[in-house]
Amino acid sequence: MTDMIDRLRLLRTESVGPITYRRLLARFATPAEALAALPELAAAGGRASPPRIPSRAEAEAELAGLHNLGARLIFLDQPGYPPFLEQLADAPPALAVLGDVALLSSRAVGIVGARNASANGMRLAESLATELAPGLAIVSGLARGIDAAAHHGALRSGRTIAAVAGGLDMPYPPEHARLQAQIAESGAVVAEAPLGTAPLARHFPKRNRVIAGLVLGLVVIEAAARSGSLLTARLAIEAGRELFAVPGSPLDPRAKGANDLIRQGAHLTETAADVLANLPDHPGRAGLNRDPLFQHGPAGFTEPPVLWDDGADRAEVAKARRLVPGLLGGDPVSVDEIARRCQLSTAAVTAVLLELELGGRVETLPGNRVALHLSP
Amino acid sequence: MTDMIDRLRLLRTESVGPITYRRLLARFATPAEALAALPELAAAGGRASPPRIPSRAEAEAELAGLHNLGARLIFLDQPGYPPFLEQLADAPPALAVLGDVALLSSRAVGIVGARNASANGMRLAESLATELAPGLAIVSGLARGIDAAAHHGALRSGRTIAAVAGGLDMPYPPEHARLQAQIAESGAVVAEAPLGTAPLARHFPKRNRVIAGLVLGLVVIEAAARSGSLLTARLAIEAGRELFAVPGSPLDPRAKGANDLIRQGAHLTETAADVLANLPDHPGRAGLNRDPLFQHGPAGFTEPPVLWDDGADRAEVAKARRLVPGLLGGDPVSVDEIARRCQLSTAAVTAVLLELELGGRVETLPGNRVALHLSP
Repeated sequence: MTDMIDRLRLLRTESVGPITYRRLLARFATPAEALAALPELAAAGGRASPPRIPSRAEAEAELAGLHNLGARLIFLDQPGYPPFLEQLADAPPALAVLGDVALLSSRAVGIVGARNASANGMRLAESLATELAPGLAIVSGLARGIDAAAHHGALRSGRTIAAVAGGLDMPYPPEHARLQAQIAESGAVVAEAPLGTAPLARHFPKRNRVIAGLVLGLVVIEAAARSGSLLTARLAIEAGRELFAVPGSPLDPRAKGANDLIRQGAHLTETAADVLANLPDHPGRAGLNRDPLFQHGPAGFTEPPVLWDDGADRAEVAKARRLVPGLLGGDPVSVDEIARRCQLSTAAVTAVLLELELGGRVETLPGNRVALHLSP
Repeated sequence: MTDMIDRLRLLRTESVGPITYRRLLARFATPAEALAALPELAAAGGRASPPRIPSRAEAEAELAGLHNLGARLIFLDQPGYPPFLEQLADAPPALAVLGDVALLSSRAVGIVGARNASANGMRLAESLATELAPGLAIVSGLARGIDAAAHHGALRSGRTIAAVAGGLDMPYPPEHARLQAQIAESGAVVAEAPLGTAPLARHFPKRNRVIAGLVLGLVVIEAAARSGSLLTARLAIEAGRELFAVPGSPLDPRAKGANDLIRQGAHLTETAADVLANLPDHPGRAGLNRDPLFQHGPAGFTEPPVLWDDGADRAEVAKARRLVPGLLGGDPVSVDEIARRCQLSTAAVTAVLLELELGGRVETLPGNRVALHLSP
C-alpha cells in the first residue's frame, strides 16, 4: 500500500511523464527512493526550485475519491492492467477505472470518427458496433458523433469501453454523463487524468493513445483531414494495431480522411465481416509506412525505452551536462543522435536528459526522442 | 489488297475466332492458303459440311460499306493497329474505325461504370474525364450512365474513344447516335463487329476486352456486383493494365463493386491526380490476384498463344484425333493438361484442336485453354 501511495505521488509529480516514470522505477529500487532523489536530479537539470511532489495525504485523498466513486486505480505492471496498452512505451502509469476491470483485458476494437458526423456515418458506426460487440469489447472516446454512436451500438448487443480525456468525475461532453454511467454499468470507463481534471485540448491526444493502446484494431469512420481520429489512427499504426477505414464518396468531404487511410493501406471496411477477417490475436509490428504521414522515423510506441543507466561515467556525465542542452530544440531528436553528436555514451546522455526533464526543460517522447519543453 | 480481302474473308468465317485466326496465319504462308485449307481442316474436325467462307464479293462489299461511312478497317499487325490492344492473345483481327486512327495509339485511360448511375457518379465520371482528357485519350463504351458522362467530360477538354458492341452503323443505345457522331468528329469510334451487326448480349464482353486492351489504366465508378464493368476490370487486370476505383459509402449499393476492387488492390481514386500518379507508360504484367475473382489460373490475355506447329508427327496426330475429344468438356481445360493426359506432344494436340475448332466442336479461349462448344 505504501508502495502504491508512493507510485501515485511519483506519477502525479510535475515533469514526471509516463516514460520518465518508467525510467525512475527502473533506476531506483523503490518508488520511495525515486521520490527522495527527485529534488537533486531536478536541480542538476537546472531547476531553481524542486518539483512539487504531492504529499502522502494528497495521494490518499485521490484514492479515497476514486473509492467513493466506485472506481479503482490500476498501476502499470499490476495484474489487470490492460496487456496491450502496457506495450506502449508511454503507457499511462496508472488508469482510473469505473466498471469491469476484467473487460480491459478482452480482445477489443476501437471505433472513432468525426464529432460532426453525418446521419449515415453514425448509422454505420452504430450497426458495426452492434455486430462486433457480441465477441469484442468496443472502445471509443465518448465524444459526440461517431464515438457516441459506437458506444450506443455496442450497448445493444455487448460491452463497451469509454476512454475519457478528463477525470472520471467530469464526463465530457456534459450531455454524455448518462451514457458514461450506462457504459460503466456493463462495461468500463477509463481515465488517465486525476479526478477533478476538466478535459482540455492537450488531454485529447493522450486519451487517443489510450484508445489505440487498448485495441487490436481501430475502425475510422468519417475523419476529416488533420482530425483527432487520424491522429488516433497514426498512434494505432505505430502501436502495431490493425487499421480499418470506412470509405465514402470523393464528393463527401467527411470521407477524405478515411479514404486517405485506405489509400495508405488501411483495410477497406464495409461490414463487421471485414473487421473480423483481419483482426489478429495480438498486436503486430506492421505499420502502413507508405505515406509521409507515417514516415517520420522510428516512432516506436512498441519500442521499449532506453532504461536509465546508473553506470554512466561521472566525467562523461559532466561533459554531457555541458554539451547536451545546446543540441536540443523544439523538434524532437533521438537520444542516439545526441550521443553521436556529443561523442559520449548513451548512458551519460540519458542520465543528463532525465535530469533536464525533471528540471522541466526537456520533454521525453515515445521512440526514445526528446525535445526542448517550450513553455508558454 | 488481295491479301486484305482474304484476311477479311478468313476472320469473318464461322468458327474462326481471334485466336484461331492468329494460328492459321502463323501456320500458312498467306491468308489465301489458310482459306484453301479450311474445308479439309474442318472435315478432320468432324464437321459434316464445310464452314461458310464469305465470298470475295462479300468482303469487298464490307470494305465499300465502311468506305461510304468514312470508316477504315485496320488489321492486326498493320501500322496504326492500337499497340496495347495488339498485346491481347485474342486481340480483334481487325477493327473498324470511324475518326482519327492515330488517337488509338495514344496513352489512354478507360472510365466505365453503371448504366443506372447516380447523379453524383456521373458528375464524378464527367469531371474526372475533363481533368484527364487534355493529356490522355478517354476510352469508354458509349453506354448510358457513367460511359456517356465520361465521353461528355472528355469532349469538353480533349479527345475520347468509344468502343461499341455492334457495327459502326448501329449506334447503341439509339439516343447516343449524336454522341457517337461527336466522338467520331474529334476522336474515334471503334467496332469489332461488321457493319449491320445489332449489338446483342454476347457482343458486350468482346467490346469490354477492346476497352481493356486500349487503355493503360481503367477507372471503375459505381459498378454493381457481377456487372459488365467488373468484367472489364477483370480483363484489364489480366491484360496487365492499372485498375482504379472510386470508393463510396457502404450504405450505397452502387459502391459495392468499386469498393470490392479497392479491397482487392485497385487504386483508391478520388481525383485525376490519383490516376496520373499511378499510370504507367506501358502495360505491366501485374494482376491483383488477391481475390477468388482473379484466381482462376493463367487466364493470360498477355500470354502469346501456342502457335500451331506443322511439324507434328502424323501418327501422333492420328492418335490425338482419337483421344482428345474424350478429354474435353464444357469447362475450359488447358492444352498442356490435355497433352499430359494423352501422353502426346503439344504440337499434335494443338493440331487436332484446331481441326476441332474449325469443325465447330471446340472453342479456343485465351490462356491456351479450350472447351467443348456447347451449341444451343
